[in-house]
This record gives sequence, C-alpha cells and structure tokens, in this order.
Amino acid sequence: MTKIAAGTLYGIGVGPGDPELLTLKAHRLIQQSPYIAYLCSREDRSMAREIVEHSIESNKGAKQQEIAIAMPMQKDRTRANQIYDQTAARISEILNQGDDVAFLCEGDPFFFGSFAYLYERLQSKHHVQVIPGISSIQASSAAIGRPLTMLTEKMAVLTGRHSNPHILQTLHTFESVVIMKPGSQRARLLGLIEQAGRTQDGVYIEYTGHAEEKIIRDLSQIDDDVGPYFSMILLQRMRDTRKAN
Amino acid sequence: MTKIAAGTLYGIGVGPGDPELLTLKAHRLIQQSPYIAYLCSREDRSMAREIVEHSIESNKGAKQQEIAIAMPMQKDRTRANQIYDQTAARISEILNQGDDVAFLCEGDPFFFGSFAYLYERLQSKHHVQVIPGISSIQASSAAIGRPLTMLTEKMAVLTGRHSNPHILQTLHTFESVVIMKPGSQRARLLGLIEQAGRTQDGVYIEYTGHAEEKIIRDLSQIDDDVGPYFSMILLQRMRDTRKAN
Repeated sequence: MTKIAAGTLYGIGVGPGDPELLTLKAHRLIQQSPYIAYLCSREDRSMAREIVEHSIESNKGAKQQEIAIAMPMQKDRTRANQIYDQTAARISEILNQGDDVAFLCEGDPFFFGSFAYLYERLQSKHHVQVIPGISSIQASSAAIGRPLTMLTEKMAVLTGRHSNPHILQTLHTFESVVIMKPGSQRARLLGLIEQAGRTQDGVYIEYTGHAEEKIIRDLSQIDDDVGPYFSMILLQRMRDTRKAN
Repeated sequence: MTKIAAGTLYGIGVGPGDPELLTLKAHRLIQQSPYIAYLCSREDRSMAREIVEHSIESNKGAKQQEIAIAMPMQKDRTRANQIYDQTAARISEILNQGDDVAFLCEGDPFFFGSFAYLYERLQSKHHVQVIPGISSIQASSAAIGRPLTMLTEKMAVLTGRHSNPHILQTLHTFESVVIMKPGSQRARLLGLIEQAGRTQDGVYIEYTGHAEEKIIRDLSQIDDDVGPYFSMILLQRMRDTRKAN
C-alpha cells in the first residue's frame, strides 16, 4: 500500500481588490494547489475568486478543480453552520486523499474574515496554514494618504453593529478609529462622530481598490442614505509629527 | 530641451519578515525602481532591506542605487527630524530628475511606520504612493492560529507606552486587544492583563516570521524580565463561533 501524505488547507488572504496586492506566497500557493475553494453569493459571484483571476489564468498548464460554496447572507446562523459543516467534510476528504486545498479569503483570513469558521472545524484534524493578506483598512489608509496609526497613538476598529455608548467612548479615547462596514448604520454613525466632535478627523471610502472606489474627505457632505456594505470611515486626530516620538 | 517626467516615491510595505509575504506589487516596484532607500540602525542593519534581499538579488540585470539612512534610536526627535529633512531633500532631487524611489518599510508603511515622516515632507510636492504591506499583527495572528477579530467584535491596538487606566479600560471594553512592542513594559502589561482577568485570553509572540520566532501560550509562564522590542501580546475572548453572527 502506498502511503499517502496528508494535504494542507491554506486559508489565503487575497487582499481587498487589486490583484497585485496578493502576496508572493498567496500567488504561489494558488498556482500550486489542485483545489481552489471560495464562498460565493447566490448570484454565483465571488469577489475573492475575481481578485485571483490572473493568478489562476496564468497557470494554464495545471489542472485545478474549483469548489464554489454558495453562502446565503442572513442573520440566523443555522443555515450557514450547516454549509460550513458540509464544506469542512468535503475539504477533509480531499486533504485525506493527500491533496492541498487553497481557500480564498477577501482581505486577511483572520481579520473579520469567515475563514475562522472553517479553521475551527478543521485545524485539530488537519494541517491548516493561514497566509495573511492585505486588509481593506490598510488599502484604504494608503488610498486616502493618511497613516492609520503612529507610534504614540491608540487605534480601535469597530463596526456599524456596535452600540452608541461604545462608539462614543471609543471616539473620545482613541486617536485613530476605523469604523468598518457602516452600511445601513451610516447616518447613525455620522451623527455619533459629530456628537464626539470628530467630523473633521474623518474620511469616508467605498469599494477600496475597485473600479467604483469613492473617497469623501468631508464627512458633512455625506447624505443620510444607506451606504454600501464595502465602505469604511477612518478617523485620525490631526498630527504634528515633528513633535511625536 | 527634453521634458523630464517627475518620478514617483513609493512607500513600500515589505511585511514582517518572510520574503514571500511581499506583495506582487511591492516585488515589482522594488525590481523596477532605480533607487532603493531604507532606514538602518547605527550597525548598518536594515531589517526591511534584508527582507527584500531576494527581490533585489533576482534582478541582476538592473543597475540600482541604494540609499541607506542611518537613524539613531533616541527619544529626542531633533536629530531624527534633521535626518528626515535631509533625506526628503535628497529624495526630492532624485524625483525631480525623473527617477522613481522605492522606500522600504517593515510591515505596513502606514501602520506604526516611520514612512509617515517622509510622506508629510514630500507628498505636497511629488507623486507619492503607498503600497500596503502585511503587518506584524496579521502575521502573528496567523502564526498562533487565532483570528484577530470576528464579525461582532471590537478590536483595539495599544503599545507599551500607554497608561494603566487606558490599558485597563481597553482590556475591559474590547474583545480583541493587541499590545504591540511590550518590550521594557512587559511586566507592567502582564500585571494589568492579570488585573483585568484576561490572562487566559492572551498569547505572547516574539520575532514573528523570523528564525528566532517564539510563541508562549500561557502568559503566566513569562518572567518579569524586559522583552525584545519585536514582540506582541494578542488577546481574544473565547469564542463560540457557532453562535456568532
């Protein structure tokens, strides 16, 4: 009987949109892995898969199989948990055959990513390796030309899900505050930022690194509508870096 | 007279140590730029330069000039500001000649990086572009196998410089807390973590991604000595991801 070496599951961060923001390691593992897996919406769209199109295309010699996992967006986690269970079982089988699986994750797999759900199901039984990726907050900070955080500063990352008192306290305490995915909460969040006296510290950005990217440097110009999911508000106190140490 | 196109200054994040964690864009720009600049200590060591050794070496055809900037580590910023002024003037001259400059930054240029000091001196007069890089907190999170943050969580990033009340309040309020560079403050920080009842939430890591990498999963096992500068404490509350949404 031939001994079969166990395969490795790679949780690969593919960055926020620009295919050139893939790491060399992500690019290599995506090209080498016989199986490429990713989540997609019901419309069969996977942003992570689109980002690595070039890495897969430039690899025509290899025969790679793709596993597209349809994941509904809903608050109740029952269906999502079933899908993660099924996906874990399927990936487990492939790993046991001795093949590697590259699981694509937008941004960084361990920063607000869904890879954690597969990781907890598989890491005790298999080799699982996480390849960090550029997160959307890093790409946004570069795009707007303002450092996320400097040596003497404290930084906090919140989402639109958090409560008013938490958000206000954070705005008062932290020099640098990132609010991820304001989306439907945008008007409430902008109100809290104004209440904390920090409107002038903020920049709003949508679809970082994508063709539709939009930057608004004056938060008071943003209307009260619901914004898209892929958006962010970055706040930094005015700095005098010549004094900072 | 020939018109000379202005050059671009690229602030390039080279990641925390593993040369394969460079992005494709960083790799390309480092190979293309006629000038490569970086900070180094008085012993002439530059970690950023070491990380990209392979990217530069594999580019033998090109003639690249290197600009090593000796930067003393001291609290008083007077000398550092002089050096940044001189460096900005030198880079400005090169850009005016029409040449690009790749400025190497460990980790991400805008996340606790020193690139901000050059950025503020040059961005109004020149084309300056920031290429985000993998930060040490992302690489550490991947190395220890624990997600930095999940959908419903709040995350805070502090350093050993912050005061006891700020650190305690943050430990009480944020599910996910990263304390960068505990270094000389290590014993004090571990005491505060214990006081906040979060010792069991933490993992300590030194020299992420380097040969000397060391991970301690039980914070109570760390002695009271001063630790190295390149270290970090990551704290996450125990999660039941099957309930999280």
